[in-house]
Amino acid sequence: MLIIMQQQAQECQIDNVVKFIKDKGFDAHISRGEVHTVIGAVGGKIIDPRDLELLPGVEEVIKITSPYKLVSRAFQPQDTVIEVNGVKFGGGNFGVIAGPCTIETFEQMDKTAKQLSSYGVKVLRGGAYKPRTSPYAFQGLGVDGLKIIREVADKYSMAVTTEVMDISQIETMLDYVDILQVGARNMQNFTLLKELGKVNIPIILKRGLAATVEEWLMSAEYIMSGGNRNVILCERGIRTFEKVTRNTLDISAIPVVQKISHLPVIVDPSHATGLRDKVIPMSKATIAAGGDGLIVEVHYNPEVALCDGAQSLYPEDFKTLFDDLKLLGPILKKKVN
Amino acid sequence: MLIIMQQQAQECQIDNVVKFIKDKGFDAHISRGEVHTVIGAVGGKIIDPRDLELLPGVEEVIKITSPYKLVSRAFQPQDTVIEVNGVKFGGGNFGVIAGPCTIETFEQMDKTAKQLSSYGVKVLRGGAYKPRTSPYAFQGLGVDGLKIIREVADKYSMAVTTEVMDISQIETMLDYVDILQVGARNMQNFTLLKELGKVNIPIILKRGLAATVEEWLMSAEYIMSGGNRNVILCERGIRTFEKVTRNTLDISAIPVVQKISHLPVIVDPSHATGLRDKVIPMSKATIAAGGDGLIVEVHYNPEVALCDGAQSLYPEDFKTLFDDLKLLGPILKKKVN
Amino acid sequence: MLIIMQQQAQECQIDNVVKFIKDKGFDAHISRGEVHTVIGAVGGKIIDPRDLELLPGVEEVIKITSPYKLVSRAFQPQDTVIEVNGVKFGGGNFGVIAGPCTIETFEQMDKTAKQLSSYGVKVLRGGAYKPRTSPYAFQGLGVDGLKIIREVADKYSMAVTTEVMDISQIETMLDYVDILQVGARNMQNFTLLKELGKVNIPIILKRGLAATVEEWLMSAEYIMSGGNRNVILCERGIRTFEKVTRNTLDISAIPVVQKISHLPVIVDPSHATGLRDKVIPMSKATIAAGGDGLIVEVHYNPEVALCDGAQSLYPEDFKTLFDDLKLLGPILKKKVN
Amino acid sequence: MLIIMQQQAQECQIDNVVKFIKDKGFDAHISRGEVHTVIGAVGGKIIDPRDLELLPGVEEVIKITSPYKLVSRAFQPQDTVIEVNGVKFGGGNFGVIAGPCTIETFEQMDKTAKQLSSYGVKVLRGGAYKPRTSPYAFQGLGVDGLKIIREVADKYSMAVTTEVMDISQIETMLDYVDILQVGARNMQNFTLLKELGKVNIPIILKRGLAATVEEWLMSAEYIMSGGNRNVILCERGIRTFEKVTRNTLDISAIPVVQKISHLPVIVDPSHATGLRDKVIPMSKATIAAGGDGLIVEVHYNPEVALCDGAQSLYPEDFKTLFDDLKLLGPILKKKVN
Repeated sequence: MLIIMQQQAQECQIDNVVKFIKDKGFDAHISRGEVHTVIGAVGGKIIDPRDLELLPGVEEVIKITSPYKLVSRAFQPQDTVIEVNGVKFGGGNFGVIAGPCTIETFEQMDKTAKQLSSYGVKVLRGGAYKPRTSPYAFQGLGVDGLKIIREVADKYSMAVTTEVMDISQIETMLDYVDILQVGARNMQNFTLLKELGKVNIPIILKRGLAATVEEWLMSAEYIMSGGNRNVILCERGIRTFEKVTRNTLDISAIPVVQKISHLPVIVDPSHATGLRDKVIPMSKATIAAGGDGLIVEVHYNPEVALCDGAQSLYPEDFKTLFDDLKLLGPILKKKVN
Repeated sequence: MLIIMQQQAQECQIDNVVKFIKDKGFDAHISRGEVHTVIGAVGGKIIDPRDLELLPGVEEVIKITSPYKLVSRAFQPQDTVIEVNGVKFGGGNFGVIAGPCTIETFEQMDKTAKQLSSYGVKVLRGGAYKPRTSPYAFQGLGVDGLKIIREVADKYSMAVTTEVMDISQIETMLDYVDILQVGARNMQNFTLLKELGKVNIPIILKRGLAATVEEWLMSAEYIMSGGNRNVILCERGIRTFEKVTRNTLDISAIPVVQKISHLPVIVDPSHATGLRDKVIPMSKATIAAGGDGLIVEVHYNPEVALCDGAQSLYPEDFKTLFDDLKLLGPILKKKVN
Repeated sequence: MLIIMQQQAQECQIDNVVKFIKDKGFDAHISRGEVHTVIGAVGGKIIDPRDLELLPGVEEVIKITSPYKLVSRAFQPQDTVIEVNGVKFGGGNFGVIAGPCTIETFEQMDKTAKQLSSYGVKVLRGGAYKPRTSPYAFQGLGVDGLKIIREVADKYSMAVTTEVMDISQIETMLDYVDILQVGARNMQNFTLLKELGKVNIPIILKRGLAATVEEWLMSAEYIMSGGNRNVILCERGIRTFEKVTRNTLDISAIPVVQKISHLPVIVDPSHATGLRDKVIPMSKATIAAGGDGLIVEVHYNPEVALCDGAQSLYPEDFKTLFDDLKLLGPILKKKVN
Repeated sequence: MLIIMQQQAQECQIDNVVKFIKDKGFDAHISRGEVHTVIGAVGGKIIDPRDLELLPGVEEVIKITSPYKLVSRAFQPQDTVIEVNGVKFGGGNFGVIAGPCTIETFEQMDKTAKQLSSYGVKVLRGGAYKPRTSPYAFQGLGVDGLKIIREVADKYSMAVTTEVMDISQIETMLDYVDILQVGARNMQNFTLLKELGKVNIPIILKRGLAATVEEWLMSAEYIMSGGNRNVILCERGIRTFEKVTRNTLDISAIPVVQKISHLPVIVDPSHATGLRDKVIPMSKATIAAGGDGLIVEVHYNPEVALCDGAQSLYPEDFKTLFDDLKLLGPILKKKVN
């Protein structure tokens, strides 16, 4: 930690800061510049920088140790590659996950999965427990939904991913699911993250609506520090002043995160934009920006979807998109699968 | 719902929209303006406005039914007044809650509570389970902390409030706690909100960092729809581009929420600003803006606090603030207690 | 305009609203739904919706007439194509503008332009007047800079674009410049916009840091309503809570704006991200999302640049990017030029 | 400036950074911590930190010299007090400015000023040039408006403040106006700020919608560095994701700015909230938070106002507010005038 003293800081104030940090177990290194004296605090344990900021004569306190450990490229320089049912995410691979927002009926899942499978999609998404803003909205089929998606996925040799909302659901889900998703609203549900650290299947960790890249990576650190190293980060839009789109897709987060971390970064263009006609350009922008995959909503007939039909692609539109991604892939050095 | 057709919308497009909403069980009322035709959809069940927006010829879709039920002033015109240990929140009462960020030791709680109690504070706060951004930070004393705060509160005839992070903690907490807090990160942990609807003690519901007023009230609706009508809303700052303060305290949310809802609205100035010297002016601004109370961090000696010492008031500063609030109260028509 | 009355609105309140809007010259159309009465106000002049919102019994007021006229697709369904020195923007064309942040010396511009020209770039950028946050920072070469960029551009048969900051600069600039840029900070400098409406060369209108899409288009409307129809919209990042990148590039604004307006939309990835290694992925994301062009910072040697060197590409990196864009173009149905 | 090297930085990378900063005229001080090596750069001229961030082995670069000079408390420890027509702002004084949004007619100004004057208000506001989002909206009376407000103000012995939008208006305005306002949209119109530095009447500098506190103070620095030391800062709401209020009034900016700068900070609650019933609580919150004054919209009859009537107070409501502020003042150690 570096403590920058004010321009007019007095000797006694500098001494006071030095004493303070030594009391907390740190060594103090003083260097006197032309304008500011800077005190380096080395080797101690945790200290809240704001405690130092409130001491007389202190201008600013700067943490210089990165908070990341397991998620960082310093810890693991090479890309993490996560493979599920033959589909790879990361390390030059662009994995595609598709399926409806919500599991409604066996027929709905069967029709959708049949088409997706025929296009080559190998990971099926669908929500069994739905986080809804209103208590009066449809809350999902629960375990019955899990049974449906598993049965359908098995029929077409697909893997399954669905959202887990609470630690009480984890054990049951492990019987049905191949990848667990943590939704944006739960990105800092630390109780949940800790439990997911003990699980041995991949976790898709969506970025919270107001989460900084640092907070997002720290939530991944929670999972990894529990022992589960298979984390896929998923950008799905952040909340800004702009209301024309549901959220603002932070596409530049892709190269930013890939520089700091070895984990794969995918995008959910459906929740980010909230409208079907924006999903396709944002999907192409994802691969162009270097993303490691997509999780996209497709419904065999969006007009009858119970939930989020407006942001679901028609199967034929998805097919065109999937084909385009495969054409773009070689130019962008990405293997679409 | 109102569907505004585009200026150049054709008859067949209007017919198509009418058919669509009738198929969903709505009646359709068409009114033709000079520029736009507007179709009113009445009486049906849930429909996603975006489904309509994607139909050809539609310019915009507007929901006109308020999503609020139990939280709204339309449902209950008079203020909800919540009383705990003789302290009232709402209906012209300004309730004050104080205590340290975290329960550290019996001695720390005892020293702090003794002073607060001597000033007339009757509700003690303190965290037993702490939501921390980093998995490597201090996570709280858990049940041992609950035992300490209860014992200390009883000694000084105070009530206890602490944060609940997960449904698995609720049952234990009910043995020790008089008011449960839902933290900002859990404001949309719907599984938790539903369970708190079954509890019969008051809930302080903090606003999420990126939560709109509407989402915040909908989360209160979750608790109330489960049967628990004792919800205290707590503004604690929202996330904006400004970084000088930890968060931006949205003080204007107080009159905004009070117009829509009958629930009391209090403020947490400590987490909102993150620095002690901003806590006092923001506390006074709260009562001046018509707020119904405060939850403020006070530590017998902030310099040795394990957590958030920088935003904790010294007891003597708190006393001056409490005295000033009592002087301001009569002018602002608020009974400070 | 539609006025939604509250659920419990009384007859006299409805009558009062009707009288109010008739007094302002509107016709009133009343339709009574099951829950809400809705009053349509047709045919009058300007009215502030908030005046209606404050009337007793009113729940909400909704403007249904789009504020856009000349910028909208309703006014002109086909894409505007703007051509400068043989480079086209819009209508399936992807135009590329490149050059340094600031005009420093003849030599610097000459070296940079020589390389760019050899790659096929035909529009050269460079700032003569620089908007700087600090009054103590370098403010640009002014007219001397304009002379340099014009001389260099003529030498390599390139067109020139530079930023205009004030109406007092316009007349001089017209002697040297082929496209004028309005910077983000001046997007709502209405005095400037009005004057640019009288000019007959194209205007690149950058989006303000906190400007909604609607405000951005209304600023284009200012220019167009003055008579100048040659407006190129330029997304350059919006201000959000995230600080890892300088701004958050709102790539989804591209398809959003293209749906509402016929004007071309280009992207400035250099200012949006502020770091060279993010510029290339964001440039590719722009064409993938359907953008109509790029304005990108390139310096013959970024390490000696006076300004923004960190976000300037090396010429050879730019060449690789330009080549990649030409490979991506055909798949994305864009002619890169 | 401090350059924090990466944990695994090599000697040659450290040498390279040292060479780079020495080439720019800085001295380099190296200190080797347990984890990071930190290089201090002292004594050189301007350097863009991002240039350093792009060098191999660099983790982070930190500027430690405050960008503020004339605006800072380091430069002038005591509060600046600005007095106009006997009304003081700053140094324990709370000055009140009131009047309509726009100058409409002599009669409107006369009626409004007569009432305000009778309550003791001594500074009259009113817009002659209006920045409007739409080119089709009312743009103000211009010079005719200036003549009206001056005549009315003289009649009631009041001072005048109005908004200046462009340098071309300054000279004329100086004949009629006692305080010039810079609107939020022009906060970074640097050409305008520079000219206002040469003027010798006070300037009210409104905070931009997306301006950080640092940028706001740097704009004040522009004016002060030109020679005009009479700057009043005015918070008027920032743009956030919340849409219930027009903007989010950043009331905590008051103590934040007062700690960094000696300049007075006032609030415009009318533009911040956009609705009359929020103006009164926010005005009281301003004085409670330690603000140095208010500029508030009052119209003799808001229902017939041409502009912003919805946010204008009725004269009698303003009187009650003014009286309440005078009651609150002594408790808050503010002299209301």
